[in-house]
Amino acid sequence: MDEISRIFLTHTANILCKRTGETIMSTMNISLLTDLYELTMMQGYFKSRTNETVVFDMFYRHNPSDGGYAIAAGLEQVIEYIKNLRFSAEDIAYLEGLHIFDADFLDYLSTFRFSGDIYAIPEGTVVFPREPLIKVIAPIMEAQLVETAILTIINHQCLIATKASRVVYAAQGDGIMEFGLRRAQGPDAGVYGARAAMIGGCIGTSNVLAGQLFDVPVKGTHAHSWIMSFPDEYTAFKTYADLYPNACCLLVDTYDTLKSGVPNAIRVFTEMRDSGLEMKNYGIRLDSGDLAYLSKKARRMLDAAGFTDAYISASSDLDEYLIDSLKAQGCRITSWGVGTNLITSKDCPSFGGVYKLAAIQDENGNFLPKIKLSDNTEKITNPGNKTIYRIYEKDAHKVKADLISLADETFDESEDLVIFDPAETWKHTRLKAGTYTMRELLVPVFKNGECVYTSPSVMEIRDICTRELDTLWDETRRLVNPHEMYVDLSDKLYEMKKNLLSEMSRDM
Amino acid sequence: MDEISRIFLTHTANILCKRTGETIMSTMNISLLTDLYELTMMQGYFKSRTNETVVFDMFYRHNPSDGGYAIAAGLEQVIEYIKNLRFSAEDIAYLEGLHIFDADFLDYLSTFRFSGDIYAIPEGTVVFPREPLIKVIAPIMEAQLVETAILTIINHQCLIATKASRVVYAAQGDGIMEFGLRRAQGPDAGVYGARAAMIGGCIGTSNVLAGQLFDVPVKGTHAHSWIMSFPDEYTAFKTYADLYPNACCLLVDTYDTLKSGVPNAIRVFTEMRDSGLEMKNYGIRLDSGDLAYLSKKARRMLDAAGFTDAYISASSDLDEYLIDSLKAQGCRITSWGVGTNLITSKDCPSFGGVYKLAAIQDENGNFLPKIKLSDNTEKITNPGNKTIYRIYEKDAHKVKADLISLADETFDESEDLVIFDPAETWKHTRLKAGTYTMRELLVPVFKNGECVYTSPSVMEIRDICTRELDTLWDETRRLVNPHEMYVDLSDKLYEMKKNLLSEMSRDM
Repeated sequence: MDEISRIFLTHTANILCKRTGETIMSTMNISLLTDLYELTMMQGYFKSRTNETVVFDMFYRHNPSDGGYAIAAGLEQVIEYIKNLRFSAEDIAYLEGLHIFDADFLDYLSTFRFSGDIYAIPEGTVVFPREPLIKVIAPIMEAQLVETAILTIINHQCLIATKASRVVYAAQGDGIMEFGLRRAQGPDAGVYGARAAMIGGCIGTSNVLAGQLFDVPVKGTHAHSWIMSFPDEYTAFKTYADLYPNACCLLVDTYDTLKSGVPNAIRVFTEMRDSGLEMKNYGIRLDSGDLAYLSKKARRMLDAAGFTDAYISASSDLDEYLIDSLKAQGCRITSWGVGTNLITSKDCPSFGGVYKLAAIQDENGNFLPKIKLSDNTEKITNPGNKTIYRIYEKDAHKVKADLISLADETFDESEDLVIFDPAETWKHTRLKAGTYTMRELLVPVFKNGECVYTSPSVMEIRDICTRELDTLWDETRRLVNPHEMYVDLSDKLYEMKKNLLSEMSRDM
Repeated sequence: MDEISRIFLTHTANILCKRTGETIMSTMNISLLTDLYELTMMQGYFKSRTNETVVFDMFYRHNPSDGGYAIAAGLEQVIEYIKNLRFSAEDIAYLEGLHIFDADFLDYLSTFRFSGDIYAIPEGTVVFPREPLIKVIAPIMEAQLVETAILTIINHQCLIATKASRVVYAAQGDGIMEFGLRRAQGPDAGVYGARAAMIGGCIGTSNVLAGQLFDVPVKGTHAHSWIMSFPDEYTAFKTYADLYPNACCLLVDTYDTLKSGVPNAIRVFTEMRDSGLEMKNYGIRLDSGDLAYLSKKARRMLDAAGFTDAYISASSDLDEYLIDSLKAQGCRITSWGVGTNLITSKDCPSFGGVYKLAAIQDENGNFLPKIKLSDNTEKITNPGNKTIYRIYEKDAHKVKADLISLADETFDESEDLVIFDPAETWKHTRLKAGTYTMRELLVPVFKNGECVYTSPSVMEIRDICTRELDTLWDETRRLVNPHEMYVDLSDKLYEMKKNLLSEMSRDM
């Protein structure tokens, strides 16, 4: 097959992917979306050793925004990345031109496919620090290569899904619209950020491409430019209402919210009502000024004119803290458009996930645990091939604690379970048999390079996430200074870690 | 032509674009990368009025990170977006399914092409608040549609280019490597963020895809996993040095920087030297701990072993403030890898650019100025079809001030020029003829829908940016509390604005 035909076929496949509902990433080759050092290390492994199977964990150390939890998101895009991971002739030519890589290694890359296993915590799940969200078990060259893209994808979507869940929590049942595309850090950040925001509980997005790609609700009405392009505000409102009588949200702050915007909106609503139109799904949007004050005043004006069912929506540099504060002040807003602060997670714009070697398989198939020391104790990793169990209080179905154990450990719910804090080991808790249930969080996603997992739709993941958040007590969801969830280590894992640390410190 | 052929042809064109060096965005259809309200407004204009030509300005209000300037970036991607802007049959079908848009409007969209003019400040230019970075003069439906994507692209790249220039400034001539892909807000944020970081002055990026797409230097060596995958640190270093003797940077903090990492690095360097190798481009990387202390200690150890030309590089949550502080403490680091804080512009993760209607053309071809009021004075826009002149102090070739004027105004450098502060109008400055020069900043990019501008390469833009930054006094580049550059309005523009404001306030 000649080169052009090959590209055509690849692209046809990609187009078909896209047309059957997969995402935009399908149409771009992101195999080179990696740090150069992954490739220099790969060549190093290629030249210097056998391609042993290893275990890498992707985990994070701190909840974003000093919150009590995070939301797992981005797995579907990781799956697409792994499935499409191959180096085109153009990629190989580029790498050759760097004069770092030898022909034998580039030959190997040209037929590269991922052949390993991947386990992951499904999207929408509530997660906590130090838990492997993704576990890769693969020959070291493959496991090393996928580090950067996995981190880029998962770090971003976990961050935004978590932020969205916080904003949704603050809104106490009001709908949150994701409005941030224009302030996103590039097109992908807008598109996948909208996806993650939906997972975190938003009711819709302004981003049309995200709507198309992920089959999520898109919403929006008009901007100040609409108002300004007409001779006066009334004409702009009236024209809009004639065009969209069933989704008539009027932006009232272009000239003066209370003196001009709201009176003109009421005039148009009155004309709509007088014309015999059934008034539904209509209201105003505030986009500047003091939203608590303006919403109360506008509410009174709308009510006085008989438009008690007109909603008041608001946008303007909102985040979870401001919504919480406006709610506390009795604002009359019931619908919120959140842009910049959500799509960038402004107070905490990075998730900080890392990808660390945890074990290397020996010739007998045993996993030899590996650990990274650090001057900074919290940066010491958990060694070994691990899994995670979530422990629920049986009656309330709320999360009691998570337990990280070795993958081959088993637990019996019909027995008491003693868990302890891995930092302060004297803190023991005995869970009586019958009072708790356990669930393993990691599920198989790839087996021997084949995908064995089907991603739910984004709206299904959103439902999962809602149910997951219901398994947290409010103490953990609290926006400021929440209760820190217990993430404990099994006895066996704790002993392994302690022994490795002793060994290492003896060696120095 | 049937649908499949049409898609094939489109994609062939895109592939060819990519293969001739254009960027990844060429291969994705981002025409639906827009807020829904752009489309609802477009249909509104379509249904309710003639498609008058209008002027929209894209500008920002505050310099990122409370700095004294910003760097223009992202224009090349805006150009690609505009060139490729068309709605596929699939896009139209998606929009139809939303049940918001009528058949006549969708017909119009299906043959949509941008037919207007665009002016822009070239990439790499130093810019200041309230200056139109992009000016779109087009029929209102077209000018409205392109708002969101222009903002997404320009906001992101200006932000990161500006941040990079600050980090580079703090490093006082040391090289800054962009290392942030894994913490970027999605793949694009990594790729275009790397592009912007190069424009802002970085010497290279770890991001291989960015290297391929933009022909910029890529760099990187190894991670902790490389060290941990070998039986001991010395073997890991030795293996690496054998493989990459001419780019041997050893990461020394996996176990203990001063007790293990640096001694093992010195052992390997000694073996390299003893083997007769010409030692060049070698050194160590610190990635945790107190970088000032460790670098001084490591420097002494390296020097004592005769490796005075071994460099010390560092990474670990760096930004311009920390680099500045480490420099002030006499650290011995001369090469810096900056990740999270640069690629997300962590202390200020959004640029805040907006896109505002400035004028509408009447039937006689005159531009009627438009203004947006606000309770917040600084949010009041500058009306009219404008341009920007940069005024330099002739001898020093440093920026004295910028002057926003109406597009048809002319200025004569052989006469004195009086400029004044638009907020505090009593603040006048008279520039004597012969002591200043002027340069218009906006250049034509599209004329009647045709691109009339050729983007320089990223490395050329980087050179432009370096020269641009040289036109600022240090007082404006200072990281904290810099001098605020004067951005004045011409007499004519000031009068127009004042009159419009009077008119509007009379109407209410």
